[in-house]
Amino acid sequence: MSAATQARRFDKNAEITVIEKSGFVSYGACGLPYFISGEVKTAEKLIVYTPEYFKNSRNINVFTRTKASRINSSKKTVESVNLKTGEKREIPYDKLVLASGGTPFNLFGNIKNAFKLKFVEDGIAIRNFIEKNNPRKAAIIGAGYIGLEAAEAFRKLGLTVAVFEKAPKILPAADDEISKIVERELSKNGVTVVTGISAEMKNTGEKILVKAGKNENKFDFALIAGGFAPSVSLAKGAGLELGTTGAISVNDRMQTNIPSIFAAGDCVEVRDIVTGTPVFYPLGTTANKTGRVAGTNAAGGTAVFSGIVRTSVSKIFSLCVGRTGLSQHEAAAFSNNAMAVVSTSPSRAHYYPGGGKITTKLIFSAGSGKILGAQMAGADGVAKRLDIWAVAVQKGMTIREIAEADLCYSPPFAPVWDPVLRAANKALLELKR
Amino acid sequence: MSAATQARRFDKNAEITVIEKSGFVSYGACGLPYFISGEVKTAEKLIVYTPEYFKNSRNINVFTRTKASRINSSKKTVESVNLKTGEKREIPYDKLVLASGGTPFNLFGNIKNAFKLKFVEDGIAIRNFIEKNNPRKAAIIGAGYIGLEAAEAFRKLGLTVAVFEKAPKILPAADDEISKIVERELSKNGVTVVTGISAEMKNTGEKILVKAGKNENKFDFALIAGGFAPSVSLAKGAGLELGTTGAISVNDRMQTNIPSIFAAGDCVEVRDIVTGTPVFYPLGTTANKTGRVAGTNAAGGTAVFSGIVRTSVSKIFSLCVGRTGLSQHEAAAFSNNAMAVVSTSPSRAHYYPGGGKITTKLIFSAGSGKILGAQMAGADGVAKRLDIWAVAVQKGMTIREIAEADLCYSPPFAPVWDPVLRAANKALLELKR
Repeated sequence: MSAATQARRFDKNAEITVIEKSGFVSYGACGLPYFISGEVKTAEKLIVYTPEYFKNSRNINVFTRTKASRINSSKKTVESVNLKTGEKREIPYDKLVLASGGTPFNLFGNIKNAFKLKFVEDGIAIRNFIEKNNPRKAAIIGAGYIGLEAAEAFRKLGLTVAVFEKAPKILPAADDEISKIVERELSKNGVTVVTGISAEMKNTGEKILVKAGKNENKFDFALIAGGFAPSVSLAKGAGLELGTTGAISVNDRMQTNIPSIFAAGDCVEVRDIVTGTPVFYPLGTTANKTGRVAGTNAAGGTAVFSGIVRTSVSKIFSLCVGRTGLSQHEAAAFSNNAMAVVSTSPSRAHYYPGGGKITTKLIFSAGSGKILGAQMAGADGVAKRLDIWAVAVQKGMTIREIAEADLCYSPPFAPVWDPVLRAANKALLELKR
Repeated sequence: MSAATQARRFDKNAEITVIEKSGFVSYGACGLPYFISGEVKTAEKLIVYTPEYFKNSRNINVFTRTKASRINSSKKTVESVNLKTGEKREIPYDKLVLASGGTPFNLFGNIKNAFKLKFVEDGIAIRNFIEKNNPRKAAIIGAGYIGLEAAEAFRKLGLTVAVFEKAPKILPAADDEISKIVERELSKNGVTVVTGISAEMKNTGEKILVKAGKNENKFDFALIAGGFAPSVSLAKGAGLELGTTGAISVNDRMQTNIPSIFAAGDCVEVRDIVTGTPVFYPLGTTANKTGRVAGTNAAGGTAVFSGIVRTSVSKIFSLCVGRTGLSQHEAAAFSNNAMAVVSTSPSRAHYYPGGGKITTKLIFSAGSGKILGAQMAGADGVAKRLDIWAVAVQKGMTIREIAEADLCYSPPFAPVWDPVLRAANKALLELKR
């Protein structure tokens, strides 16, 4: 919808048609855990604009519950099937934007009462299941952001929750110092965590049996959040090139190898600005930004997407945890002189109520002092501090430059020496050794 | 104390002596409004380290309630008077750091029950006055951060509060769009605001009479927060050069024109990184940073202070308001092609509870798109977003660079299009016109 809207801005007269398999467009998928927990009362609240709004206000035709079954790139048509009526159509295009998104890995085949959490329908299914069946025990496969946000939602509903992660720790994308802080938070909130074992799952009667090593436990339902693959079958059928990550390969105008076809969102790989290499890192912000770039270019404008620095953040119970740039592991693979420091300091003036500790892990180049990545965890004021690091990483700034930054100070919001400055100062001392 | 501590880090053996007129060292002066309101229970909580701590842990001699009465720069001594005993001493030095701070303007001479708010003793005096006299009406002269933070504190104590500001608007350092938001917040919280008139003040019996134009009102006490001057009498006596702002002039090593004397904190002028000119902009962060640089250099190390971008922030009732870089006024004086946009957008995903609107004013160069300044006001997540702009201004980044920034997104912390990105995108559209 970002692409469609941006195309409309650039071309007032173009005929713009959107084909969408699910029943919803323009929704906040990242809000689904808060819909499940009831913090967001209705699924409708997650929706930004309806198909009717797009038609009436932006003259964009939206066909929901309509599946694009084939792209015929030589004829320049998309074959579609209306999933309600079965009606087939062949829709011509001059320019096409493919935003086929991604799909959670289906790790265990067809298990009854095992859900995924990607589409609005998934959230509704889980909430309906909980309301109707009054379950007591939930298993979550995968301890990434979605799995842990769902764990919080399920705990808020009073369920017993166990999270299974095959990696040796939760939040595999974070470094150990940060993962451990989150692990303590999960434990404090009564979430059982099982790491380092590949869980197996099957139905036994009305229950789901999860086997992790020698341990077997029964659950009333499960959420499968063990990773995510780009949906590329349409792309492959159209002859679009995939990149090294398996996602669709595009240039910085979000154009595929077929010049009339652009691609954007969770189905493409994008450039990591630090390493210069393509990565598959599907997140809402990137999807929106790449959508706008694809829409602009498809409509005859000129826009460029410069890439990402893998910034992400999540609320896990009272913690905010996030990262930007490279983790220490990723930095070690990229450069042989990456260093790291870990610094913990208060989020507000020590005497001002409501603050908490923020732990910062800062990864930088021992030679130049260039900031390669940062991770943070804490209860107060973490997310937008992470953005300071995100900008620093994206612009190739050094730790000295951040140590010198004139950041704001007022007791309710920060101590004189902000956690960002403390981490930079600590790194600076390491650099001088 | 920052200078003394840093000097100790660089020289384990130096004899380090600190002379302090007040009874306290190493305290959070910015916390005084919260001590007055009772949010900070005791004055002791504002103190980071005591003189005893400095002596025992850092081998730094601290003489409190001791006034440095004269610097003899040819003999390299400081004459001091113990304010309790009257004892005079002449203390020799090899290197001197002058951190004489600043003094609130004494606008009305000696008025009974008219207070200032700079030292811990000032906060104690106000709190004692309120506890003993149970006043009902407070006048505040000056609608800068200190005046408005005090207004909030007094309202929390149930007082009737009127703020008098001689400039045509409150927060004279902010642009109109931001001042107006704060003015509404003050009004909503029952604070009377009188702007554009120079108030006069005198005692009548036990009351203070404040005259603003034709209006006269009586108050039980007053706070004078109408600006702040560097304390430079010691400096002048020692032959130190003052700069164009009237504060002590230093090089980037915080060294005065007399090489053995360094100066730091609220008594010096510092370089504004955007304009390259010296400014007097006394804030706690700058004082701490310049103190560290002065202490390092005084102890034989090498440190440089690169300057400030005038970043400041304040909590005013439920609002957070702040600025970095140049205001539109300042930018217009500095460059003849400065532009500005104002953008208001939500702090969190629209469906996630607890968010609010953030208004951003962004000032940038019409030619290069270089960001010259930013101001923000809002109830949720403003302060550290301001720091994103602070880094951008300090590093001379363009609005395009910030529009491309990979900022973090998660419904509890930000919408997909963060207010920072929205403001940058709006500026980008203006730039293209």
